[in-house]
Amino acid sequence: MYVILVYDVHQKRVGKMLKLCRRYLNWIQNSVFEGAISELKLKELIFEAWQIMDESYDSIIIFSSRNERWLDKQVIGLEKNEIDQFL
Amino acid sequence: MYVILVYDVHQKRVGKMLKLCRRYLNWIQNSVFEGAISELKLKELIFEAWQIMDESYDSIIIFSSRNERWLDKQVIGLEKNEIDQFL
Repeated sequence: MYVILVYDVHQKRVGKMLKLCRRYLNWIQNSVFEGAISELKLKELIFEAWQIMDESYDSIIIFSSRNERWLDKQVIGLEKNEIDQFL
Repeated sequence: MYVILVYDVHQKRVGKMLKLCRRYLNWIQNSVFEGAISELKLKELIFEAWQIMDESYDSIIIFSSRNERWLDKQVIGLEKNEIDQFL
């Protein structure tokens, strides 16, 4: 499956969440990730995210599509993940 | 069509971008919007976004799917747009 993940977590937990999501998906912007992932791996990611999150404050939204071809992506302005590769 | 829009713009331009995106889509988290929109309306939105953006710094990513049913959404933790309705 293909997923887009966006998180909104407290500043204190951003570093951990970023590191976790990068292990499973590709960072594309600020707090946005995308990538192909198996259902099992996605469950693992969600389980690990729960350990980091404060569910009374933090939020993660995961959009998933069974087929990557069902989703088009358009970038307007700066493609930030290209810069990221040089950092 | 159904779109997910995420922006990453300079603090100075966040207010304007938020206001613009809210006119066309539903705010769901931080800088993330979703909704059904016609191709024409999406072009309008992109055109207006260009007027606000500094393309050497800001970025917008738009994922689109011809059919909303091709996309599943899962919210983990706090559903922030529900809070938003009371603000």
